Amino acid sequence: MPRFKLIIEYDGAPFVGWQRQENGLSIQEALEEALAAMTAERAIVHGAGRTDAGVHALGQVAHVDLEREWEPFRLGEGLNALLHPHPIAVLKSERVDSGFDARRSARTRHYLYRILNRRAPLALERGRAWRVKPPLDARAMHDAAQALVGRHDFSTFRDAQCQAKSPIRTLDRLDVMRDGDEVQIEASALSFLHRQVRSMVGSLVEVGVGRSTAGDLKAALEAADRSRCGPVAPASGLYLARVDYPEAHGGEFGTLPSSPANAGEGDRAKRGGGGSSIDQAANSAK
Amino acid sequence: MPRFKLIIEYDGAPFVGWQRQENGLSIQEALEEALAAMTAERAIVHGAGRTDAGVHALGQVAHVDLEREWEPFRLGEGLNALLHPHPIAVLKSERVDSGFDARRSARTRHYLYRILNRRAPLALERGRAWRVKPPLDARAMHDAAQALVGRHDFSTFRDAQCQAKSPIRTLDRLDVMRDGDEVQIEASALSFLHRQVRSMVGSLVEVGVGRSTAGDLKAALEAADRSRCGPVAPASGLYLARVDYPEAHGGEFGTLPSSPANAGEGDRAKRGGGGSSIDQAANSAK
Repeated sequence: MPRFKLIIEYDGAPFVGWQRQENGLSIQEALEEALAAMTAERAIVHGAGRTDAGVHALGQVAHVDLEREWEPFRLGEGLNALLHPHPIAVLKSERVDSGFDARRSARTRHYLYRILNRRAPLALERGRAWRVKPPLDARAMHDAAQALVGRHDFSTFRDAQCQAKSPIRTLDRLDVMRDGDEVQIEASALSFLHRQVRSMVGSLVEVGVGRSTAGDLKAALEAADRSRCGPVAPASGLYLARVDYPEAHGGEFGTLPSSPANAGEGDRAKRGGGGSSIDQAANSAK
Repeated sequence: MPRFKLIIEYDGAPFVGWQRQENGLSIQEALEEALAAMTAERAIVHGAGRTDAGVHALGQVAHVDLEREWEPFRLGEGLNALLHPHPIAVLKSERVDSGFDARRSARTRHYLYRILNRRAPLALERGRAWRVKPPLDARAMHDAAQALVGRHDFSTFRDAQCQAKSPIRTLDRLDVMRDGDEVQIEASALSFLHRQVRSMVGSLVEVGVGRSTAGDLKAALEAADRSRCGPVAPASGLYLARVDYPEAHGGEFGTLPSSPANAGEGDRAKRGGGGSSIDQAANSAK
């Protein structure tokens, strides 16, 4: 059966999450319904990451097997027409070999978390970021975050509902950057535990407002105890930004359209050469 | 009577526009209702610019006279609480002298127009940008736009409903920049005719896709004939970005939270020293 790879952007707000559920419409179901309308086949869409209710994607990746061959471009265009009015867009559709598996072949998952650090409620960015009122020390958050990078038992930052067999994960990077009144957190790993990013972000904000220290965060990690986790950050600020695959499967991605305000003027630029590996990969792939 | 200056952000999508109208809720009415609930006064909110239905603001400015004195910070916080759930936020509230008039004292109005130049429909940016499918030559658009800068009869780019006495305006700048798949147009002037920015953007897109040339655009301007205008760009991509006042009245502004993707990597950066004067003012004021 021909296998297709889809790169998908969505606004997670109106959905119960990526995965099919009884209690409402999921992104997976919306995609499968559009596929069924187009191909008259009942195919299962397999995603790289199961985003929770309200979590967005700039570049979710999925694969699907169809009975018939389709011209990939036409498949993507047709799906987009049928997905309307859902805020889901197929950014790219391509034919892949049967060795490609959106979940199992993934080498790195990149998440972005957006905080707007201001007193005023969100208007234009409502549902797209977490508004945090007290001033955040992004530098202190970044420094504290480095204790979480590497191979650790992440039980402290794991949701009670998490079904993973092991709490051990290897976090490749956890960067915190300020750009005007926006604080962005980027996390990359082969895989994450359930709500790991939102749990880490919540604890980092405790450091950012001065309620806890880098030492407290390190101690909380080492305790491997869920009760040591700070408040879990809301879903609205989280984006599955990109999923990387081995060369043979391409390195496609999605990016959030950037606004002109502050572009290139934030701490990101000031931090110098390091910058954002998500951006670098995005730009090099262009 | 004490006069207050408000800097306001809003998502224009659910409103009939800035100005009070019979046919639905305006931003002005929502603000006046919140003020009435807070102060028990029926005050009129005077805006710097009358944005159309669906047009957004990052930094609309308004003034209002109240009978009682209010602590400006408390006024802003109270209004934000009462404006919920409308996507309107008071970013700043301050006490000004009676010489300040949001409309008449304004020295420069800055508008931003956002185009997403891609085939896929908008998901996360739906209602916040104009999706244009054919590849746009942003450099050609920028070069063509320079013919519109300066003092001209803008009858070609003026809506038939425009009530201004004169079609003569002085356009200070009209810059077109590409940043990844986003094309941004920034326009600054003391004042604009009705739908002038959207009319200019529509005609610039004709140049960007190759349906017309810089020479055609210049000839259309010189004809001073509405029938020579290209299709008017949709409201969803337009933002009242900032309003400048003489030093005595401060130089406050609003900025769209920027995303990390492509930050500093777009044509904006490549264009070198010039950059965006909106950004520069924003950053210098920080």
